[in-house]
Amino acid sequence: MSTTEISAAYYKGNKEFAIEKIMAAAPKADEVQIEVAYCGICGTDLHAFHGSMDARIGHHRIIGHEMSGVIAAVGEGVSNLKAGQHVVVRPLDHCGDCPACEAGHIHICHNLKFLGLDTDGAFQQLWSVPAHTVHVLPDDLSLAHAALVEPVSVACHDVRRANVQPGEDVLVIGGGPIGMLVGMVAKQAGGNVTISEVSEARLAIAEKLGFSTLNPLNDDVPACVMEMTGTKGADVVFEVSGTQAGVNVMTEAAACRGRIVMVAIHATKPEVDMFRFFWRELELLGARVYAPEDYEKAIELVSSGGIDAETMITDIGSLDTIQSSFEALENNPTAMKSLIKLQAD
Amino acid sequence: MSTTEISAAYYKGNKEFAIEKIMAAAPKADEVQIEVAYCGICGTDLHAFHGSMDARIGHHRIIGHEMSGVIAAVGEGVSNLKAGQHVVVRPLDHCGDCPACEAGHIHICHNLKFLGLDTDGAFQQLWSVPAHTVHVLPDDLSLAHAALVEPVSVACHDVRRANVQPGEDVLVIGGGPIGMLVGMVAKQAGGNVTISEVSEARLAIAEKLGFSTLNPLNDDVPACVMEMTGTKGADVVFEVSGTQAGVNVMTEAAACRGRIVMVAIHATKPEVDMFRFFWRELELLGARVYAPEDYEKAIELVSSGGIDAETMITDIGSLDTIQSSFEALENNPTAMKSLIKLQAD
Ligand SMILES: [Zn+2]
Ligand SMILES: [Zn+2]
Ligand SMILES: [Zn+2]
Ligand SMILES: [Zn+2]
Repeated sequence: MSTTEISAAYYKGNKEFAIEKIMAAAPKADEVQIEVAYCGICGTDLHAFHGSMDARIGHHRIIGHEMSGVIAAVGEGVSNLKAGQHVVVRPLDHCGDCPACEAGHIHICHNLKFLGLDTDGAFQQLWSVPAHTVHVLPDDLSLAHAALVEPVSVACHDVRRANVQPGEDVLVIGGGPIGMLVGMVAKQAGGNVTISEVSEARLAIAEKLGFSTLNPLNDDVPACVMEMTGTKGADVVFEVSGTQAGVNVMTEAAACRGRIVMVAIHATKPEVDMFRFFWRELELLGARVYAPEDYEKAIELVSSGGIDAETMITDIGSLDTIQSSFEALENNPTAMKSLIKLQAD
Repeated sequence: MSTTEISAAYYKGNKEFAIEKIMAAAPKADEVQIEVAYCGICGTDLHAFHGSMDARIGHHRIIGHEMSGVIAAVGEGVSNLKAGQHVVVRPLDHCGDCPACEAGHIHICHNLKFLGLDTDGAFQQLWSVPAHTVHVLPDDLSLAHAALVEPVSVACHDVRRANVQPGEDVLVIGGGPIGMLVGMVAKQAGGNVTISEVSEARLAIAEKLGFSTLNPLNDDVPACVMEMTGTKGADVVFEVSGTQAGVNVMTEAAACRGRIVMVAIHATKPEVDMFRFFWRELELLGARVYAPEDYEKAIELVSSGGIDAETMITDIGSLDTIQSSFEALENNPTAMKSLIKLQAD
């Protein structure tokens, strides 16, 4: 089998990457080999960089999954894809026979493998993945913008779980990259979106993007939401903050029968107002990653300009300097998405 | 206007009732006057008896709402009901113009009045209520059995919120009267019902009713549920216990995309596993009282024998001895529903 020398960024533990030259093997049967164009830095990647996922990923792992690229070669048995196509990867490999897979919920498979964590990922120049994870892009979509498809798919999944309807009042708690994308997708669905966020720098971006904004450090968020909605409350709340304060606001600000989507990862169990769930018949919906249809919706939104990609992409670095790109994201509230460009010009 | 002398039980504070003779006025416009046949003692009534609702109900209140009876007279403007009809009352009076009412969710009206708490209730021989709260019963339905319609409606609402489907695995956490009724209604909907309860006396009743049972004092409930369902977990969980332990079990025992219905009233905020909501895409649905269609479903189930009324009704007392009927329910795990008979034979 033919091999090609490529560069890859290995996470080596302790906030360090090493750029190594490796030989990329040709794609195996049912695999597709992609020349990676861009790969964004996800919150999960930062988490890994900080050492919080060492038990899962080890100290010799190529991470990265928010990518775009061009098919270089296809393995045996792949007939629906071909070299030259612009693509993104939905980085989920499911088992096919657990109860969740059997019920059709492959994205929450009991044995789900996340490509770029449980397997090597996209911070390398050639990446081979199972063909079933590949989505084809329109040729005229910028590959830099297309690197946003994965995080936009998260937002599309969240908004689809909430079933946001035109004219509904939507509160997003937390204005980081995912909160901002959730706001954009909810707005595209017709929602009147308010973003609650403690960082004034992020609130300035949210305002530039056309959202109403609240700062819980200055505003009584539930009281403001009740006033803005004529005592009704928010029809839909997205909890993206991962904080106890956010969990308090989510129940207080929701309308009767309001839907609350749990987007954030809460590492510890917060106290939750179960009486309010009972009294107002609230609904809480967990939302994790994405289904294939969320990817298709995200490709459509990024292509149409429904997502403001230029505002979201705040930095583009190169593979050589991936270390400093990660370091630059520490405590940087104005950074939204940093991309790594994998190929030389 | 004509008046009639009747007996009524007034809650006087401090775990005491006084039976008083009062004059019942004729029904006002849009009201219906009902000769109350039976009225069950609800958990809420016990709560009131213990003094926990004094701020809301005061010390001169006729409580009671789980009633059945016969229309004695109708007020001006009531054309769809007439004297002699057997009826039950859905004890909810909504405002008609808050955001919840406008959205059609009248049972969670922001200004909801609960008849028998916020107004005088059914522990009296003649009770006048707004005509819109009255549901007509089939003539051949026992009026004693019909006193179960209100709590069965609670269970019908809970099961409808969960959308229980035939063949689904259902876990009910808490085997008191409401838990037992939720189990019966879920079983009628085709669910495979398991009841988790700490009282062996109640578990014996649950087994007699044909439910699978677990005792969290002896069994690891989530592990048992996973084993019973081939690692899937419960498709639907009803949290009826109102305890932190119940809240822990509800997330641990639920299947991917499992629906958890919050039936219990949690006076303090429990810690809730929000990570599990995210990871398994769980849903939490608050459920409070009932809509008109839940009453119609409950009347159908009590009439058809889908509810085992004979097992549920564990005592029938009279108005004179209401004090001892309430006292007998203290720490009595084998008591399910106690009814008070309002009329002499
Ligand atoms: Zn990501
Ligand atoms: Zn699976
Ligand atoms: Zn009741
Ligand atoms: Zn209302």
